[in-house]
Amino acid sequence: MFFSVDPGADASIGGMAATNASGTLTVRYGGMRDQILNLEVVLADGRVIQTGSLAKKSSSGFHLNGLFVGSEGTLGVFTEIALKLHGIPENIVAARCFFKTVRDSVDAAVSILTAGIPIARIELVDSRSIKAVNAYSETDYPEAPSLFLEFHGNQAGNQEDIEFVKEIVEEAGCLEFLFETDSLKRALLWKARHELNYALRHGSRELASMTTDVCVPISALSDNVEFADTQLDVLGLKGGIVGHVGDGNFHVMILFDPNSLEEIDKAKDLNRQIVNKALLSGGTCTGEHGVGLGKLKYQRQEHGEALDVMIAFKQLLDPNNILNPGKVLPINEKNA
Amino acid sequence: MFFSVDPGADASIGGMAATNASGTLTVRYGGMRDQILNLEVVLADGRVIQTGSLAKKSSSGFHLNGLFVGSEGTLGVFTEIALKLHGIPENIVAARCFFKTVRDSVDAAVSILTAGIPIARIELVDSRSIKAVNAYSETDYPEAPSLFLEFHGNQAGNQEDIEFVKEIVEEAGCLEFLFETDSLKRALLWKARHELNYALRHGSRELASMTTDVCVPISALSDNVEFADTQLDVLGLKGGIVGHVGDGNFHVMILFDPNSLEEIDKAKDLNRQIVNKALLSGGTCTGEHGVGLGKLKYQRQEHGEALDVMIAFKQLLDPNNILNPGKVLPINEKNA
Ligand SMILES: Cc1cc2nc3c(=O)[nH]c(=O)nc-3n(C[C@H](O)[C@H](O)[C@H](O)COP(=O)(O)OP(=O)(O)OC[C@H]3O[C@@H](n4cnc5c(N)ncnc54)[C@H](O)[C@@H]3O)c2cc1C
Ligand SMILES: Cc1cc2nc3c(=O)[nH]c(=O)nc-3n(C[C@H](O)[C@H](O)[C@H](O)COP(=O)(O)OP(=O)(O)OC[C@H]3O[C@@H](n4cnc5c(N)ncnc54)[C@H](O)[C@@H]3O)c2cc1C
Repeated sequence: MFFSVDPGADASIGGMAATNASGTLTVRYGGMRDQILNLEVVLADGRVIQTGSLAKKSSSGFHLNGLFVGSEGTLGVFTEIALKLHGIPENIVAARCFFKTVRDSVDAAVSILTAGIPIARIELVDSRSIKAVNAYSETDYPEAPSLFLEFHGNQAGNQEDIEFVKEIVEEAGCLEFLFETDSLKRALLWKARHELNYALRHGSRELASMTTDVCVPISALSDNVEFADTQLDVLGLKGGIVGHVGDGNFHVMILFDPNSLEEIDKAKDLNRQIVNKALLSGGTCTGEHGVGLGKLKYQRQEHGEALDVMIAFKQLLDPNNILNPGKVLPINEKNA
Repeated sequence: MFFSVDPGADASIGGMAATNASGTLTVRYGGMRDQILNLEVVLADGRVIQTGSLAKKSSSGFHLNGLFVGSEGTLGVFTEIALKLHGIPENIVAARCFFKTVRDSVDAAVSILTAGIPIARIELVDSRSIKAVNAYSETDYPEAPSLFLEFHGNQAGNQEDIEFVKEIVEEAGCLEFLFETDSLKRALLWKARHELNYALRHGSRELASMTTDVCVPISALSDNVEFADTQLDVLGLKGGIVGHVGDGNFHVMILFDPNSLEEIDKAKDLNRQIVNKALLSGGTCTGEHGVGLGKLKYQRQEHGEALDVMIAFKQLLDPNNILNPGKVLPINEKNA
């Protein structure tokens, strides 16, 4: 059996549960909330509750599990977590394919998803990021917008899925479809993907970085990614785009000179533009990193009056505001 | 694309969302909560909120979606529901296999699940129920404890999964493994399964019925089902056992003479025994039907102090108790 959530950082199970973390396998196996059967939670007043049970599904009482997962330590502290595991697939095949434009690659991903293929990983890596990977990891992947794919199943089933996916991506303008034939090459591919943040920063050590984390409906994904791609160039900023595109979640890593007020402003402005476009598309300001302090300012815009319900829950459970105060909910802001 | 939740009753989307309904396909595609991206909810005070967004995942704010799904109309009225759809699989194969004992059949189901096979349907139908089906639907299935199976995938992949499953169930004592070769026979199989409630009652029109709905951890499933099976006989009650065993959720349909106080007591007693055993196993008193009034008495036992948090949420959002009063939460009971 294996545990399926694989964020790109060295995270604890508690932190992953508290942020509803996800990763490259989420398109197939779900995010952190989907893995949690039960939490033991210590509330602000010292009560200890169980938010679920060990049953895979339930219609009993209110679903507190779902509410506590993603609450970033503001509603209670998790002291025990019961997780789901998954059977290790018999056969795993990884592949890469690359395209002329970032839009082509996202369109291809959308086509794969809507064809109902149970893909296990489908990651967008833009050409800027591939360049950084090649410099950092000593791979020599073609420096073009790419999808990194993985298929989980039995051998015959994977082969048929791969044939079908090849047809789909070729239709969508794929320039070349390459297999990672052995397990070492497969491991290298996902290592390269997971280290992208470091790779991008490695090439520009004097620059600071800011990472966006929007998630949008699949139907709006191509527009949103293309917009970010264009704006990076328009603003003359360095960086790269990567994404768990199977979920509609993508990150723009924006690099900027921390000593230039102009670049800082440009970076902040781009971040805001990307979030605004995502929210207008029916998406969310944070797909997996959480609100913390950085996304407080978008909470009203995203949640409307639902934000008042969240604030009321917080005040009910933690009236003295002792649990991770100031995070997630803009309680003291005028616009709350 | 298709919508994957298929309860055995003619249900509305609102009712299914409000009870966190599930069905035979839930083992593969998830229950109602897993399909819901966003709810428009009218609260008791008239406010209208959106509990989610159209993004497939989010780490923004508290997850109100999860809380409102399954709240049985006690926290708000859903006026709009955004659902996920799934791609229709290229190839669908159904099969039946039968066993000497109900324990063998459940053990076989557990082995299939832990082998990591992405089975789409895996339903237990005990011999009593098969007899009723044969009488009601004019099928002639072998009258032994059975699993009804369905595989979703591509043709080659399904074939390999089926070979593997055949090995597993034969190891577990399967007496015969039969395919439903054409789509008509496949439809008949699932029609028979969905009409089981009616079939069981049809044979005993003078009797009343009571249906249990526990869900238990997979590791405790065989023990719990076998216990129910034995107790039906020990108490001399008519009925049958069916189950979404892939989720650990099974129903005992208990038939009893509504004019006999002794039989009514026996039926109630069996229901209680089955729930108690499920709760002791770390399970839940209701896997999919909801609490309503009938499961109020188990809420404290199942949820402990978490029940007080649920009651506090209810009182916060509906202080005048105007939304489906008296359901889900034993607010006015002494033991609450
Ligand atoms: C390079 C890089 C890559 C990343 N990639 C991903 C990614 O792919 N996917 C992803 O989802 N995230 C990613 N992240 C974000 C982050 O690492 C994750 O959200 C991670 O889950 C946080 O876990 P942690 O253990 O570091 O938690 P921390 O950062 O220590 O805490 C996170 C939050 O959880 C709360 N918390 C921690 N433990 C508990 C507990 N036991 N009970 C209650 N609250 C608790 C804390 O109060 C805090 O609010 C990335 C971050 C970096 C720097
Ligand atoms: C023969 C039979 C077989 C069944 N099989 C299954 C099964 O396989 N799986 C399963 O999950 N259930 C099953 N059920 C139980 C039940 O049918 C389901 O739970 C179903 O989802 C209820 O939907 P409904 O539209 O009938 O809702 P109703 O019974 O009308 O309402 C159910 C609850 O939801 C609330 N509600 C309804 N609409 C809304 C709304 N818009 N906003 C807020 N609250 C609302 C109501 O207040 C009520 O509390 C079965 C029942 C029968 C009789």
